[in-house]
Amino acid sequence: MARWEPDARGRLEKAAMDLFIERGYEHTTVGDIAARAALTERTFFRYFADKREVLFSGSKDLERTILDHIAAAPPDQPGLDVLAAAYAAAGTWLENMREIEYVRARYALVAKHAELQERELIKLAGLAAATLKALVARGVPEPTAGLAAELGLAVFKLSFERWATSRKPRDFAGHVRAALAELRTLAAGAPGPAPKRARRA
Amino acid sequence: MARWEPDARGRLEKAAMDLFIERGYEHTTVGDIAARAALTERTFFRYFADKREVLFSGSKDLERTILDHIAAAPPDQPGLDVLAAAYAAAGTWLENMREIEYVRARYALVAKHAELQERELIKLAGLAAATLKALVARGVPEPTAGLAAELGLAVFKLSFERWATSRKPRDFAGHVRAALAELRTLAAGAPGPAPKRARRA
Repeated sequence: MARWEPDARGRLEKAAMDLFIERGYEHTTVGDIAARAALTERTFFRYFADKREVLFSGSKDLERTILDHIAAAPPDQPGLDVLAAAYAAAGTWLENMREIEYVRARYALVAKHAELQERELIKLAGLAAATLKALVARGVPEPTAGLAAELGLAVFKLSFERWATSRKPRDFAGHVRAALAELRTLAAGAPGPAPKRARRA
Repeated sequence: MARWEPDARGRLEKAAMDLFIERGYEHTTVGDIAARAALTERTFFRYFADKREVLFSGSKDLERTILDHIAAAPPDQPGLDVLAAAYAAAGTWLENMREIEYVRARYALVAKHAELQERELIKLAGLAAATLKALVARGVPEPTAGLAAELGLAVFKLSFERWATSRKPRDFAGHVRAALAELRTLAAGAPGPAPKRARRA
């Protein structure tokens, strides 16, 4: 039995990830997670709606961080720059919140399970919708705001992926800046590299 | 009893949409749909894995159209232009396949139900992954291909939304060209309009 700790949420998260790695995601029940954390199932459901949610803890805090940065951005900053800066700040927040080992393990787990990917897609769609509203509140008209929100999310996803999978560097904000620069190059229509082989006519 | 028609898939789709509009999506069962189409539930499940799938019929054909266009694009065409052209062609294909009334009704239905949005997000993520692979096959390196796939999808989503909801024009390819132009403007960092009100410091 673990000694008493006040951080039930954090204990449940840690217990869940440990068990997912040890036994596999599908072979772990909410009961197992609660037992490992020396808590009851009832306590688990006080924090998380289901087994999947334990892997998305903190997504609301992440969203709040992003929205706060959008609201506080200089009024004349272009929409996409506002979003990139907000995502970079959220990444720095995430770096301080999470061990990189947890991030990597979680990333691999989500990539392996369709039902986790599904939940991730819903969360990301919700995040894009929230950033869209935040841009509209700044005076960016629709549909520009909607497109900017989608592009911002693309930058965030790519940055997150690199941050979570590359050995180094681990600087999230640097990944965001690099992805934004790549987006600009791509959008400007710079030709890709020569194709590997001749195309059919 | 309707007279015998060979197009079971089409009859099931029409019966489903009619019932979703008449009774609501949640109050319609697979049994209801099959009965309305004068078919059995077993026949329904030969075509669709579940009630949701009846609204995503043809998504594989749409994907095939898109991938064929990517594969046939000029070898030196930049990735994002390749995708935009492929999505425009797919839109034209869709215009010929579907009555606009069906498209509108379906769009409104998906927007209203979380479980349908979820399925749509999965399908779109699958489509983005498929276009990514198709770009890589053309010699576009990762991560450029991944970013291009996300941007292409953003253009497609916006174009689809406008096509499905605006009174006119109904020209899907025109919406794609407009969305791509907006993406380029946004990415170039053109400032948005002046904010509605003064920001807090």
